[in-house]
Amino acid sequence: MAKLTSRAEDYSKWYNELVVKADLAENSGVRGCMVIKPYGYAIWEKMRDELDKKFKETGHQNAYFPLFVPKSLFEAEEKNAEGFAKECAVVTHYRLKTDPNNPGKLIVDPEAKLEEELIVRPTSEAIIWSTYKNWVQSYRDLPILINQWANVVRWEMRTRFFLRTAEFLWQEGHTAHATREEAVEETEKMIEVYAQFAEKFMAMPVIRGIKTPSERFAGADETYCIEAMMQDGKALQAGTSHFLGQNFAKAFDVKFTNKEGKIEHAWATSWGVSTRLMGALIMAHSDDQGLVLPPSLAPIQVVIVPIFKGEEQLNQIREVVSEIQVKLKAKNISVKFDDDDQNKPGWKFAEYELKGVPVRIAIGARDLENGTVEIARRDTLTKETVTLDGVEAYIEQLLPKMQDDIYNKALNFRTQNMTQVETYEEFKKVLEEKGGFISAHWDGTAEEEEQIKNETKATIRCIPLDSIEEQGISLISRKPSNKRVIFAKAY
Amino acid sequence: MAKLTSRAEDYSKWYNELVVKADLAENSGVRGCMVIKPYGYAIWEKMRDELDKKFKETGHQNAYFPLFVPKSLFEAEEKNAEGFAKECAVVTHYRLKTDPNNPGKLIVDPEAKLEEELIVRPTSEAIIWSTYKNWVQSYRDLPILINQWANVVRWEMRTRFFLRTAEFLWQEGHTAHATREEAVEETEKMIEVYAQFAEKFMAMPVIRGIKTPSERFAGADETYCIEAMMQDGKALQAGTSHFLGQNFAKAFDVKFTNKEGKIEHAWATSWGVSTRLMGALIMAHSDDQGLVLPPSLAPIQVVIVPIFKGEEQLNQIREVVSEIQVKLKAKNISVKFDDDDQNKPGWKFAEYELKGVPVRIAIGARDLENGTVEIARRDTLTKETVTLDGVEAYIEQLLPKMQDDIYNKALNFRTQNMTQVETYEEFKKVLEEKGGFISAHWDGTAEEEEQIKNETKATIRCIPLDSIEEQGISLISRKPSNKRVIFAKAY
Repeated sequence: MAKLTSRAEDYSKWYNELVVKADLAENSGVRGCMVIKPYGYAIWEKMRDELDKKFKETGHQNAYFPLFVPKSLFEAEEKNAEGFAKECAVVTHYRLKTDPNNPGKLIVDPEAKLEEELIVRPTSEAIIWSTYKNWVQSYRDLPILINQWANVVRWEMRTRFFLRTAEFLWQEGHTAHATREEAVEETEKMIEVYAQFAEKFMAMPVIRGIKTPSERFAGADETYCIEAMMQDGKALQAGTSHFLGQNFAKAFDVKFTNKEGKIEHAWATSWGVSTRLMGALIMAHSDDQGLVLPPSLAPIQVVIVPIFKGEEQLNQIREVVSEIQVKLKAKNISVKFDDDDQNKPGWKFAEYELKGVPVRIAIGARDLENGTVEIARRDTLTKETVTLDGVEAYIEQLLPKMQDDIYNKALNFRTQNMTQVETYEEFKKVLEEKGGFISAHWDGTAEEEEQIKNETKATIRCIPLDSIEEQGISLISRKPSNKRVIFAKAY
Repeated sequence: MAKLTSRAEDYSKWYNELVVKADLAENSGVRGCMVIKPYGYAIWEKMRDELDKKFKETGHQNAYFPLFVPKSLFEAEEKNAEGFAKECAVVTHYRLKTDPNNPGKLIVDPEAKLEEELIVRPTSEAIIWSTYKNWVQSYRDLPILINQWANVVRWEMRTRFFLRTAEFLWQEGHTAHATREEAVEETEKMIEVYAQFAEKFMAMPVIRGIKTPSERFAGADETYCIEAMMQDGKALQAGTSHFLGQNFAKAFDVKFTNKEGKIEHAWATSWGVSTRLMGALIMAHSDDQGLVLPPSLAPIQVVIVPIFKGEEQLNQIREVVSEIQVKLKAKNISVKFDDDDQNKPGWKFAEYELKGVPVRIAIGARDLENGTVEIARRDTLTKETVTLDGVEAYIEQLLPKMQDDIYNKALNFRTQNMTQVETYEEFKKVLEEKGGFISAHWDGTAEEEEQIKNETKATIRCIPLDSIEEQGISLISRKPSNKRVIFAKAY
C-alpha cells in the first residue's frame, strides 16, 4: 500500500488521498457528485442517529417534502431565490425516447417539456413554507417543529469530497412559531445542539457565533453558526441555524390568529448540518498514518489482530479472542476480529491505522503464554501490555479517555492557533506566517469586511456568542468597536 | 370531524380520505409528489429501521450513490433503459438567472445547458454498476453486498398516495457475486427477508412467487415478488428481488478473475421495497373508523385518555396515569397521555381510532373509585375493564395477541377470497362477482397472459414458490400445464 502524502507536504492532497484510501468516498461518473462508500457511510449513520435522537429529544418530528420545487414557488422569497439561483439543477423534461438516428440510444423527448420547470431543491424553505400555509390557522397550530433528512443539490463548480459536492446529504429543520422570541429561542437552541454534538461526539471544539450580514443565509434575518479549526489553521463552518423572521411567512402567506384574535405572520427558523461534517471530522483529527476517529463515531471501536504461525496457534488465539469479544460486546463496544490469513499482521496494523480504528489488540504466541495482550491506541500510536483478565475493563476506561484526549488535543491546537491582533499590519503578518484564527476588532461595516477579504482572503467567521465587551479600534477604518470578531481563511 | 367515506361506499375514496385525515400524507405543490407528514413518516421510520436491521444481519452494508445518472450511463443496459425511458425526469440546465423582462422572476439560463443530460435516478443499477467496475478485480473482491436508502423519481401520469407517486422513498440493494448460484441464493434470501417482514411486522400475509417474463423488472433474468391482498380483493406487489444475471456486468464491463484464474463477468441482484408499503399497510387492515396499525409498527402503541370534571379530578387521574406510564415504558411500550383540555373524550376516542393507535386506556372518576381502567382494542373495537395493578401485564400480552389477530384476520380474508378455477368462463365469473385472487392453470405463453389481461384486466401476479406440481389445462388455449399461477387485478 503506497504511503499517504503527509500533511506537511501537501495538506489538500493528504486529505483527498485519505478519503479514498480509507474507503470513505470516491468520485463518481457524475460531475461533482461522490459515492459514499460503506465505511464512510457507517460513520455518517452514527452521526445521523445521534443527531436524530437529539432532535427528537428537543421535540422535533421527521417528515418528508418533495425533491422538486416548481420555479414559481422557488422564486417567491426573492432573497433566498437570488442566493441559490446560480447553482440550481433544473428539470425541464419528463421523458426520453429512442433516438431515431441512433438505434439503442436515447434522446430527450422534445414533446415532454414541462410547462413549469422544476428546481432540484438546494434547500427546502420554499416547498416547506408553501405547505405550512395549509397547516396554520390559529396559534394552537404552532409551533411546527419538523426536520427532514434529505439529499440536496447545489451546482458547485469546484468540488471537494464531503466539503463541497454538487449533491450532498443533510438534515434541515424547519420550524414555525407564534412569536419572534420563541423563534429566536429555537434558533439558539439548535445551534447549541450542534455545538454539543460537535464537541461531545466529534471531539471537535467549535466557536458558537453569529454571521455578519454579508455571510448570512439568503433569506435569513440572522445566521448562527459553529466554526471549527482544521489542522491547517483554516476554519470550517460545521453547522448553521437561521432565524428567518417573517420573510418566508410573508412570501408564502402563512398567517395565524394569535391569542388576542389578531392575524399575524408566523415566525420561522431553519437549521442544518450535512455530510460536510465528515470532512470536518477527517480534517480535525487525522494524521499522516490515516484517519483518527473519536471512539463515539467509530464504526469499529476495537480490532483484534492475531499473530500466529499455523492453524493450531490460531485456534488457541481464537479461544481467547472469543471471550474478549463477548465481554466487549456486553459493554456495547463494537469489535472486529480479523483472522483473515491472506494479509500479514503488519499489513493489518497499517490498514486499521489508515481506517482510524481507535483501539487495536494484538495477540501472539508469547501473549498466550504470559496471559497478556498488546493494546495500541490509534490517537497516540502508543502501546501497553495488559493482562487478559483486565482487557475489557482497560478498554472500557480507555475509550472515553481517548474521546477526551482527542478533544483536548484539538482544543489545544486551536488555542495555540488563535491570535489576538490590534493592527492590520499585525493581522496580515499573523495570517501569512502563522495562520489560524485571528481575533480582532471590526467597525461593523460591510466595506471593511470586504476590503479585508479582498486583500487577505480572510473572512469574518463569526461574532462569537461569548465575546466580551471590550473597547477597541477596528483594523482598517480605526473606528471604535466594542467587541472582537473571528477572522480566518475558510473552507 | 366529518366521517370517513366507508369502504363499501367507495374504496378508493375511503383510502384517499384516510391518508389525509389520519395525517399520513398530503398532496404537494409538485405534480405527483406528496408530502409525508410526521405521523406517516414515523410509521415509515419504524419500517425502515426494522428492514435496515435485517439487511445488516444478512451481511449488507449501506452506502450512497449519486441522484443523477448521465444519459450515456443510463442507456448502457438497453432493456433497463428502455423500461424506464418513458418516465424519466431529466436535468438539462444547471443555473437560473434573473428574467430581464420580469424583475424579481427567474428564468433558466440558456447558457447553462449541460453537455450531457442527467437523468434523476428511477433506479440505480446503472450508476452503481458503473462504480462496481472499479471495485472488482478478483473473486476475493466479491461478493459486494450493498444497500442504499434513497429517493427515486418515476414520472407517473396517474398518481396515488404512497402507491404510485412521481418521487418515492425506498431502499435498493445491489449485490455482485462470483457465481450464478450465489446470486440466485441472494435473490431468494432477500425476497424471504421481505416476506418475513411483511408477515411479522406488517401483519400482512404475502404470497412469495416469481413473475412471468412480461412482468419482470427491465433488465432482470428473473423477478421474485411478494404479493399481498388488499381488502377490495386486489393484489398489491409489496416487494421485489431481481436476479439480474450478467446483464449489468456486461453492460458496464464488470469482470473478475475467478479461483481458476479465468476472467468472468460478475453476477448481479437487486431488490427493493418502497413507501408503497405504507399504502399496503393502510389498505390491508384499516376499517371505516380509520387506520388499524399492527402494534409493532404503531408510533404510539397505547394512548391514555382521562375523563374528568375539573382540575382536581384530573390531578388524581394524573397520579395514576404517571405510574402506568412508567410501567409501560419499562416494558418498551410507547404510550401517550392526552390531557389536552380543548377536546372532549369522545373527540379523542374518534381521533385515536382514526390514527390507529392499537390500545386506548380510558380513566374516569368511577375508575379511580373502583381501582380499574377501561381498555379498548383498536382492531376489534372491544372494551374490557381491567384492575389497575394488572394494566401493564394485560397490555403486555394484549399487544402480541393483537399483532397475531390482525395477521390472522388478513389471512382468513385472503383464504376466503382465493378461488381455484378450471375454465375461463368460471375465471371471468369469479373475477366479476367475487374478485380476489384466482388460482388457475396457464399455458406459459405471453399470448394467453396478454389476452386474459386485455379481456379481464387481471394479470398473473406470480407463479407461487410453493405451488404444487399438478396436471391441468390452461384457461384459454386449453394446453396442458403442470402448476397453477395466481391471477388478480392489481394496484
